[in-house]
Amino acid sequence: MAKPKKEPRPKAETPKGFRDYFGAEVTTRAAMLNAIAGVYHRYGFDALESSAIETVEALGKFLPDVDRPNEGVFAWQDEDEKWLALRYDLTAPLARVYAQHRNDLPTPYRRYAMGPVWRNEKPGPGRFRQFYQCDADTVGTASMAADAEICAMLADALEEVGIPRGDYVVRVNNRKVLNGVLEVAGLLDPESPDKFVAERGIVLRAIDKLDRLGVEGVAALLGEGRKDASGDFTEGAGLSPGQVDSIIRFVHATQDIAQQVLRATMDKSLSAEIEQTATAESQRFGFSREKFTDAQLLWNKTALNHLGFLAEGSRVGAEGLAELEEIATLLAAQGYGPDRIVIDPSVVRGLGYYTGPVFEAELTFEILDEKGRPRQFGSVAGGGRYDDLVARFTGQQVPAVGVSIGVDRLLAALHAKGKIGSAERGPVVVTVMDRDRMADYQAMVGELRQAGIRAEVYLGNPKNFGNQMKYADRRGSPIAVICGGDEFAKGVVQIKDLILGAQIAENATVEEWKERPSQYEVPRAALVDKVRDILAEQS
Amino acid sequence: MAKPKKEPRPKAETPKGFRDYFGAEVTTRAAMLNAIAGVYHRYGFDALESSAIETVEALGKFLPDVDRPNEGVFAWQDEDEKWLALRYDLTAPLARVYAQHRNDLPTPYRRYAMGPVWRNEKPGPGRFRQFYQCDADTVGTASMAADAEICAMLADALEEVGIPRGDYVVRVNNRKVLNGVLEVAGLLDPESPDKFVAERGIVLRAIDKLDRLGVEGVAALLGEGRKDASGDFTEGAGLSPGQVDSIIRFVHATQDIAQQVLRATMDKSLSAEIEQTATAESQRFGFSREKFTDAQLLWNKTALNHLGFLAEGSRVGAEGLAELEEIATLLAAQGYGPDRIVIDPSVVRGLGYYTGPVFEAELTFEILDEKGRPRQFGSVAGGGRYDDLVARFTGQQVPAVGVSIGVDRLLAALHAKGKIGSAERGPVVVTVMDRDRMADYQAMVGELRQAGIRAEVYLGNPKNFGNQMKYADRRGSPIAVICGGDEFAKGVVQIKDLILGAQIAENATVEEWKERPSQYEVPRAALVDKVRDILAEQS
Repeated sequence: MAKPKKEPRPKAETPKGFRDYFGAEVTTRAAMLNAIAGVYHRYGFDALESSAIETVEALGKFLPDVDRPNEGVFAWQDEDEKWLALRYDLTAPLARVYAQHRNDLPTPYRRYAMGPVWRNEKPGPGRFRQFYQCDADTVGTASMAADAEICAMLADALEEVGIPRGDYVVRVNNRKVLNGVLEVAGLLDPESPDKFVAERGIVLRAIDKLDRLGVEGVAALLGEGRKDASGDFTEGAGLSPGQVDSIIRFVHATQDIAQQVLRATMDKSLSAEIEQTATAESQRFGFSREKFTDAQLLWNKTALNHLGFLAEGSRVGAEGLAELEEIATLLAAQGYGPDRIVIDPSVVRGLGYYTGPVFEAELTFEILDEKGRPRQFGSVAGGGRYDDLVARFTGQQVPAVGVSIGVDRLLAALHAKGKIGSAERGPVVVTVMDRDRMADYQAMVGELRQAGIRAEVYLGNPKNFGNQMKYADRRGSPIAVICGGDEFAKGVVQIKDLILGAQIAENATVEEWKERPSQYEVPRAALVDKVRDILAEQS
Repeated sequence: MAKPKKEPRPKAETPKGFRDYFGAEVTTRAAMLNAIAGVYHRYGFDALESSAIETVEALGKFLPDVDRPNEGVFAWQDEDEKWLALRYDLTAPLARVYAQHRNDLPTPYRRYAMGPVWRNEKPGPGRFRQFYQCDADTVGTASMAADAEICAMLADALEEVGIPRGDYVVRVNNRKVLNGVLEVAGLLDPESPDKFVAERGIVLRAIDKLDRLGVEGVAALLGEGRKDASGDFTEGAGLSPGQVDSIIRFVHATQDIAQQVLRATMDKSLSAEIEQTATAESQRFGFSREKFTDAQLLWNKTALNHLGFLAEGSRVGAEGLAELEEIATLLAAQGYGPDRIVIDPSVVRGLGYYTGPVFEAELTFEILDEKGRPRQFGSVAGGGRYDDLVARFTGQQVPAVGVSIGVDRLLAALHAKGKIGSAERGPVVVTVMDRDRMADYQAMVGELRQAGIRAEVYLGNPKNFGNQMKYADRRGSPIAVICGGDEFAKGVVQIKDLILGAQIAENATVEEWKERPSQYEVPRAALVDKVRDILAEQS
């Protein structure tokens, strides 16, 4: 007789590029997002949760003449032939929501959103196809007060989750200043904005490589071209030496500003200017002179001067400078000085996307990289002003500004700073010595839970007591409760301090072991109190 | 010249069957889930978050020979031809996770999970294709202590979110008892379990219609058949009168138990039995006699007796009874009496799915339905024991028991009980009387936020003051701060109590209006204190 053909068993695995999150991984993220939501809420932002699925049309990925829409998103056809997709960020859905509900929403509309997004991209180490974003945006106002507010809120959010002041800085730049520099260099004609688009593209991509290539490498790419270490040659943009010089001076602006500030604070002859700035700011907004260092007091002023010099003669450049100055003033009025938020031309993020101010939160403490070398932690959040997303739906431009916090990066930073542990404390485990007394063990665990103490009865096979202790160990349990026939007869319980026990087992001499017992016998009625005492000692 | 063909604008709308959630809809759900997670955590359950996407294979929907897998899920083909799908519940992913990680997980593994799931089903009023689930399961133990624990945890969770004791009841039944009744009726042969499968199917479907057809309708369907009000005839299962009688006695069991309990509590001759029960229970677990009513004390005892009578002679029935009795004892030991958790044969949920105890949380208070008639709120959670899900992957049976809370139903119940409002309090709005003083307004709002008060500056066009007050109204703002040239000159601010203002505008006489001003002028330095005072008065 032929054997019946068996259905093969399914494989127990996540799809490629996805993973599971366990215990503390879930709860620490939730706690961090909750803390950030509290800050956003205090700033008047309202929660919004849109569904994970949008029409491909609304997301702005247009169908080419093939079976599937663009790479990059997870998409499929609905039963009525409509293409649906999982959201790839939280900004595209916001534009759709605002366009759809704008008559019912307040204007301006301040909203925050947090949740998973999905990218159909090649996964890599630490790069997953589902990850969290945490955004706040203000839609419907061109006021720089909205941009300033979001920078302040970002600083508050970082402090709220445990990044101390001094360990982060929010850097602010303005896309219009860069455009001004490009205009001065002859690479942007305000009368015909479509001219030199290709050249500007090369410039932007070159600037984006600053971290990797350094100033000289970028200069080579802007001019004749660049030969890398392997001898490969990349053709350059062919700009004139004067054009290259203008752009390099912008690329180098942050270092130049730093030098000017340093010189000024060291040069006695300039101390009058510092005093004047300090006096003016402190009078206007009630700061104490001692709040900031001389360098901090001078920084934004120097940066604005220097950028004005680089973009001199460009109307859009001047506009960008005025916006930066307004942001700095509004922030100073709320007490956010350059110790927290600084003007910094080196911020060049999302250049193709933003239309005005751009900003980035950087963590300034050092961590060791995978090769043990110290390096700055780097960026954990960024954002800026964008004006065209809602217009896709309505035809009307709606100015908007927003920020997105990189949830996984910020969590990694908090781990690096020791602000969150990798494992949470497990439950108190009530072990089972006599299967027939399960009701009594349940009564114990019930009392502990009523008292707000995380606790559980061992529910596996109780035969082997060693397995119960191994289970408690795997659970990270702080305490085991033990009660067998003798204890029931005497009306007592044994309470074992597993953390102290582990310490003693590792380090203690026999004498210490005798002096510091890690197991206590207490009357049954004292169970909850004794457990509470031990937990308090442990923490 | 032909006009260039324009890309049509995308429609700003969610896909069919999806919706957006705003403000309090998001935060009240998050707060409720957070409270439930706290209870689950206290019981020793660990968080698990698996990704939204699973392989279709792992989810257990098998591909037919067509282009798309079964209806019911959102599924698509990955670039390597693998079918992926959005999870449709949280139990199928748990089985995959446990099979994949079982060597690293504790056994038993207690886990909770909360998040959206997706169903590719026809949407209807109040029925969406994305909704939340909130589950807790214990995998890897056959102990009834796990089932009892989940019932107790469910009761605790309901009280934690705001359903008071007395307004809910967790009903417990056991699938094995029903099998025992079917065995006694000759519809289940333990030696050949595949026999009578069709008949049992008809019986189960008939019992499931009890709510709609009543006992007589079910009896007709089990026997000769049933003619409905329109004259249509449904053929019956053709069971013998004796078989029909056995099953109807089971269907009717809850009412019969209720009558027996009622008789016993009214009948003086039975009061000795009540006293005996009360004394035994209170001695064993330290209850006070007054904790429960006579009816409550008798209920579980009577239910077990009655079910034992109905399933007499069946081994599996006896097993089910023993399990129910064990659950009741374990719960009593933790103080969960029949005021919260009762044995109730009327629970027939998910009959095809569960293998042992099944349970359901019902809210017992009345609400008005859409036609204004009072009706019981009904079920908000359910679960039971299932043993076959992990075996799909590993070939080894792994016993498991779990519960799922209907997040939207429970939220609706909390709304009905007035436990959560439909709108949250908006931010304090600092209005803008003089655009050039924006830095000063920002300073005010900065101080309020530093003091933990939700506040914002009006960021729209400030020209029309009426629009600012309309904005404050739409935001649900409790207070508006007003400061123009006069106020700046005098060093004061105007603080307007918008809630009192609205009350006065609606109800007050002119005298009252004069006596109870809703607007205050205070020194600028007193801004935060005065706002705090007004907020305290309002709440």
